[in-house]
Amino acid sequence: MLGSGFIARFYADTLHDQRRKDRIHLVYSRDENNAKRFAKDYGLNGFTTDMEEAINHPDTEVVLISLPNHLHEAAVLACAKAKVPVLCTKPLGRNAQEAKRMLDAVEEAGIFAGYLEDLCYTPKFLKSMKSIQGGSLGKILWTKSREAHPGPHSDWFWDKEKSGGGAIIDLGCHCVEIGRNFIGKQVKPLEVMCWADTQVHPIDAEDHAVGLVRYASGAIGQFEVSWTFRGGMDLRDEVMGTEGTIWLNSFLRTGFEMFTTGKGDGYIAEKAESNSGWLFPVGDEANELGYPHMFTDMFDAMETGREPLETFYDGYVVNAILDAAFLSASTKRWEPVALEIWRGEEEAIQAANFQEYDATHWLIKKEILPNGDIKLILKNKKSGELSQLVN
Amino acid sequence: MLGSGFIARFYADTLHDQRRKDRIHLVYSRDENNAKRFAKDYGLNGFTTDMEEAINHPDTEVVLISLPNHLHEAAVLACAKAKVPVLCTKPLGRNAQEAKRMLDAVEEAGIFAGYLEDLCYTPKFLKSMKSIQGGSLGKILWTKSREAHPGPHSDWFWDKEKSGGGAIIDLGCHCVEIGRNFIGKQVKPLEVMCWADTQVHPIDAEDHAVGLVRYASGAIGQFEVSWTFRGGMDLRDEVMGTEGTIWLNSFLRTGFEMFTTGKGDGYIAEKAESNSGWLFPVGDEANELGYPHMFTDMFDAMETGREPLETFYDGYVVNAILDAAFLSASTKRWEPVALEIWRGEEEAIQAANFQEYDATHWLIKKEILPNGDIKLILKNKKSGELSQLVN
Amino acid sequence: MLGSGFIARFYADTLHDQRRKDRIHLVYSRDENNAKRFAKDYGLNGFTTDMEEAINHPDTEVVLISLPNHLHEAAVLACAKAKVPVLCTKPLGRNAQEAKRMLDAVEEAGIFAGYLEDLCYTPKFLKSMKSIQGGSLGKILWTKSREAHPGPHSDWFWDKEKSGGGAIIDLGCHCVEIGRNFIGKQVKPLEVMCWADTQVHPIDAEDHAVGLVRYASGAIGQFEVSWTFRGGMDLRDEVMGTEGTIWLNSFLRTGFEMFTTGKGDGYIAEKAESNSGWLFPVGDEANELGYPHMFTDMFDAMETGREPLETFYDGYVVNAILDAAFLSASTKRWEPVALEIWRGEEEAIQAANFQEYDATHWLIKKEILPNGDIKLILKNKKSGELSQLVN
Amino acid sequence: MLGSGFIARFYADTLHDQRRKDRIHLVYSRDENNAKRFAKDYGLNGFTTDMEEAINHPDTEVVLISLPNHLHEAAVLACAKAKVPVLCTKPLGRNAQEAKRMLDAVEEAGIFAGYLEDLCYTPKFLKSMKSIQGGSLGKILWTKSREAHPGPHSDWFWDKEKSGGGAIIDLGCHCVEIGRNFIGKQVKPLEVMCWADTQVHPIDAEDHAVGLVRYASGAIGQFEVSWTFRGGMDLRDEVMGTEGTIWLNSFLRTGFEMFTTGKGDGYIAEKAESNSGWLFPVGDEANELGYPHMFTDMFDAMETGREPLETFYDGYVVNAILDAAFLSASTKRWEPVALEIWRGEEEAIQAANFQEYDATHWLIKKEILPNGDIKLILKNKKSGELSQLVN
Repeated sequence: MLGSGFIARFYADTLHDQRRKDRIHLVYSRDENNAKRFAKDYGLNGFTTDMEEAINHPDTEVVLISLPNHLHEAAVLACAKAKVPVLCTKPLGRNAQEAKRMLDAVEEAGIFAGYLEDLCYTPKFLKSMKSIQGGSLGKILWTKSREAHPGPHSDWFWDKEKSGGGAIIDLGCHCVEIGRNFIGKQVKPLEVMCWADTQVHPIDAEDHAVGLVRYASGAIGQFEVSWTFRGGMDLRDEVMGTEGTIWLNSFLRTGFEMFTTGKGDGYIAEKAESNSGWLFPVGDEANELGYPHMFTDMFDAMETGREPLETFYDGYVVNAILDAAFLSASTKRWEPVALEIWRGEEEAIQAANFQEYDATHWLIKKEILPNGDIKLILKNKKSGELSQLVN
Repeated sequence: MLGSGFIARFYADTLHDQRRKDRIHLVYSRDENNAKRFAKDYGLNGFTTDMEEAINHPDTEVVLISLPNHLHEAAVLACAKAKVPVLCTKPLGRNAQEAKRMLDAVEEAGIFAGYLEDLCYTPKFLKSMKSIQGGSLGKILWTKSREAHPGPHSDWFWDKEKSGGGAIIDLGCHCVEIGRNFIGKQVKPLEVMCWADTQVHPIDAEDHAVGLVRYASGAIGQFEVSWTFRGGMDLRDEVMGTEGTIWLNSFLRTGFEMFTTGKGDGYIAEKAESNSGWLFPVGDEANELGYPHMFTDMFDAMETGREPLETFYDGYVVNAILDAAFLSASTKRWEPVALEIWRGEEEAIQAANFQEYDATHWLIKKEILPNGDIKLILKNKKSGELSQLVN
Repeated sequence: MLGSGFIARFYADTLHDQRRKDRIHLVYSRDENNAKRFAKDYGLNGFTTDMEEAINHPDTEVVLISLPNHLHEAAVLACAKAKVPVLCTKPLGRNAQEAKRMLDAVEEAGIFAGYLEDLCYTPKFLKSMKSIQGGSLGKILWTKSREAHPGPHSDWFWDKEKSGGGAIIDLGCHCVEIGRNFIGKQVKPLEVMCWADTQVHPIDAEDHAVGLVRYASGAIGQFEVSWTFRGGMDLRDEVMGTEGTIWLNSFLRTGFEMFTTGKGDGYIAEKAESNSGWLFPVGDEANELGYPHMFTDMFDAMETGREPLETFYDGYVVNAILDAAFLSASTKRWEPVALEIWRGEEEAIQAANFQEYDATHWLIKKEILPNGDIKLILKNKKSGELSQLVN
Repeated sequence: MLGSGFIARFYADTLHDQRRKDRIHLVYSRDENNAKRFAKDYGLNGFTTDMEEAINHPDTEVVLISLPNHLHEAAVLACAKAKVPVLCTKPLGRNAQEAKRMLDAVEEAGIFAGYLEDLCYTPKFLKSMKSIQGGSLGKILWTKSREAHPGPHSDWFWDKEKSGGGAIIDLGCHCVEIGRNFIGKQVKPLEVMCWADTQVHPIDAEDHAVGLVRYASGAIGQFEVSWTFRGGMDLRDEVMGTEGTIWLNSFLRTGFEMFTTGKGDGYIAEKAESNSGWLFPVGDEANELGYPHMFTDMFDAMETGREPLETFYDGYVVNAILDAAFLSASTKRWEPVALEIWRGEEEAIQAANFQEYDATHWLIKKEILPNGDIKLILKNKKSGELSQLVN
């Protein structure tokens, strides 16, 4: 385990819970006290402040990177050099260039590499993906992924140099990859339009942004990210398809409802802002956030020699999309996604797929009116003239 | 009453319900059969196919325009000429030019004119406005208004020439005005970025669009409109402020929850798509959509000589914003809102309003950690250096 | 208007709102200051402390009784004597004897009499009744009506002598009548089992109770009432039928969701307990509680000479059921409902209505298993032997 | 693993998932084909139709009983005889006598014995228990646990002889134990009142019941169980305390919301009744139902020599309460809970715990009125007279 902060603890809590068989044996931290405390809290064999030592330790079968963003690359390159399998937390890089170098390094080294994008592993997400892949929603037209809370836990997040950006890099990486999954990873992201602003905090990075990613299929993957949200942690996704709709709440309203006058006490939930009145404690936070299913996929993939659901290549594509978002936020126009490597389908030609009413008309719409009448809106295929029929 | 279609019936149902004292006496429709049927259904004194006759009828105290968009201007000009008070359904014009001419006409004639923007009159909306105006949400940062359903009822909606556009003009007019109310009507809308596409239907107009309106305060008013939604009518708004959050569902989940195997039958709700399984019938549709409170405000305003909450000027501003949205959808960049008349505040200068930790530091964030620790993220005012403190 | 308290104000707010044509002209209160203040607040023609005077005033077309429970009978008898139409708030009497005398009085006088049971008039309730009457739920098996809050507003409610009881009489009257409507008013209530206790308050009356009313059709009407609930006002109903289910929330989660740090201020909702954190303000309280639709039905019924949906006879039946509930709470066994007058169907004979699988078997259940298998549970009609089939 | 049916598969899916280290090695079933298929599906070492062989197999460290109710006792007694730790599915016995014999057997044998009451292990339940034990709800006054669906999967459930009863024994065992946990296991259950009926199916056992369990603290544990529910599987709990409220949905609305026209296909959720329209698929059914946390507690307890959260003694108490429920359903009065063994606190004396206003008055209630007034309801301690104060 490289790193001993908030996310490292979430990972460790997950791995050492529920009688799972995988164990962390060693922790590396730049700070000796943190390393020592972490090793003690999780009953590890040891700790170190020397990253190389941790990676090259004979008991290390796989390295988990839970470091600040600006330290990912060096850690991944060290793993590649040592030929040790590696799992890296999100985002992969601070930008696509960094991510590309990491991707190249692990592929050249021929090591297993997994991208720890937990929100693409929540039980709800996995099940909704099955419905979408089974066709329940028809062709996907639009997705929205929203992640908003009152801001991250550690100082480095707020430092653009170390993090690579603000809410876009911290939260947008989740949202973009959620959208890619819903729309289909084989579909090419073409261009991005993004608004970003620093509305509340005394920082250089953006604390609020909204972006649209246009894909080759015509679908839009919308993201909404903010460090200015009040009321807890808001993680919601929506999908619209030609045959259906999905609404998914991944955190704030997934637990139980509790009213309390405020007697009693204690931790309610990640980023909760109150401990009286109506509260919405989340039952099993790690599970709602996808950690258990993520590690299961990663280790199962390693053991069976298959790719995990989320790879370094995915991390690279996400960074490329976010790069375009940052650019668009400053140029104020749509910016193309620059992908040096594209492993999906080439740009689709969008075939017209209209519903016929009869030989000369398209059916635009059919509706049952309050009085029971059935109303049809038609379009003459040749003249383009619109008409309506009531039966 | 000018017009006898779907919306005219909704208006009439509202006015003649709940022992209200205002009565429709005469209906005008281009189609005699429709006029006759409408007059009979609502027990009116008469009907006509001559609009001038209806407007100039001695019993006419106020004219309600429920006509297709391309007929609004002529009707409003006729009312102005006849000096008869007028209420016009949304959108006011097909574009700002049209709306401006209508605004000028009623102001020159000195007649009462109300803009029938029902969704700014729903009971929930009115109450949430009170909370926002009372300061419960602090400074407004972002609003989202979403209106999506499977498409409108009548052929003219689908004809760009008659309607002025697709989902943007039909639904976006609601969303934009909802955002203006939340952000404050005195705050100037500066520029718009908009994506629009025709994803599903064989039409020229857009059937899906997402746009961002940037205001002088730095706030963003986001709109999401679609005629491609499956599952009913989705009307939801969100507001983020520095001190709070509001989530508002105006239709689809406002009634009761019913599971039925499909026995029994009948109308469930506007734009419902199914009559078995889990259904969500809305209790009192007119009330949830704001019609009763809208007419109450309009007639009370007329009687007491004050302005209604929604005026022709509001309708004009909305059209100007939508014009910029249409332009942005084709130029693919942010486009300025062109307002010949601006009656609100001039552009605000956004004052920094940061929270101090001590004389040399800003406080970026304060959080209670799971273990009870209190963590502070600080920024040195001069050096810009970030640091964290754990107590 | 007889009475000037909390409920009188709710009634007056409703009647004088939304451009309704009916007007209160005179208020009676035992307390002159209250009468004066009420008359002023609602712009009435006058006030009085003489009830007879109010009833017999030449402008009085109908009397609204909003008095404490122990004063209902005298007021109704005075109206009967004066032959003035009367509307009486719930409960009708403190017990069935009182209610019976009121019922007899108005029927002998031949005057119009309406029972102001508002919760049987909420828009959701009215629409759910239409679904049930249309057969969407099949045969009704069980209903639950729950009303719970932290206790009533005025001292007399807490005084058993004046009120006739605690939460059972105050809230149970709503719940019982809701159940009767769902099950069908023509179906005879047979017996009641009830638990009641004084769990929290220093009073003689019960502050918490749960009861079951068994009807001739075999259906159960369950009521849950409490003055010990924390978190606002909880009004929820459920209905189970052979073909479906209804869940209905009439208050606490019907508005919008708001998080606020507590800046700003003001009234949130009837019986809300907090003004920061997550709050659920109700949009239009009078509407959610059924007042507008109730008065519309009452006055329309008066004008057209039909019965209102809720009559004094209904009030009497409710009192008879509550009498049995009080008795059961002390005898700790099921107690029969003593109805001197029964105007519905005689006791139904419950016909077996089983589903046949084939000539020799009943079908108990059919289910699709996770693996796609269809499983049938059968019962031999003669031997009673159970078996299962998997296809 | 003894048994190879629906619940055995749920257990096996849980144990062999998420990289857990515990493994099933052998399955016993009365039917050889089922045993063989189960062993193959889960990659077991072997199968047998000889229960003794399975229990006494040298590799067997613990026995999991997933058999029909009438076979629990024999299996437990065989484990006791063989001195092999045993985990038994719910309910423990068909009645308290049977449960008592099982309890005695394992205690005399000195073996570890766990009661597989999964719904007391859902993540939400465990977290809500922490809040309750931490005092957030004050003193518990009332709990409601509801379990309703369209009926169980296998023929033996419907056969009273084999199952011990209908919905009461099948579902009531969950609800009663949920209530005991919320109220406190140390608090003695005193008496039960229960209604039960066979409303829909051609069976001897009840398919619908509602019961109230009264505890020594004055708290009520209400249960609602049904095999007649339409719309899926309804698992909801509620808790009322002097300081707060908890509402907990354990299944039907815990996943995501999906509308689909019905294209695509496949299993939606346990006991879902439809595959088009609005659906509510549950993300991770085993997790929502508590299986993973239950087995973690059981095996951790075994390893560390502590008691699991749910013991055979708990199963015995539940059976004793259900026995009283069955009796009450026929005698139509409250029936005492007959507990030969009671290991909790003796009957509590309920101390009056009223809030004082001043030396001579109790405070009954304090409320902020819509107009901002604060209203107090008081009771004179000596005279009992009620009064109100408005500030």
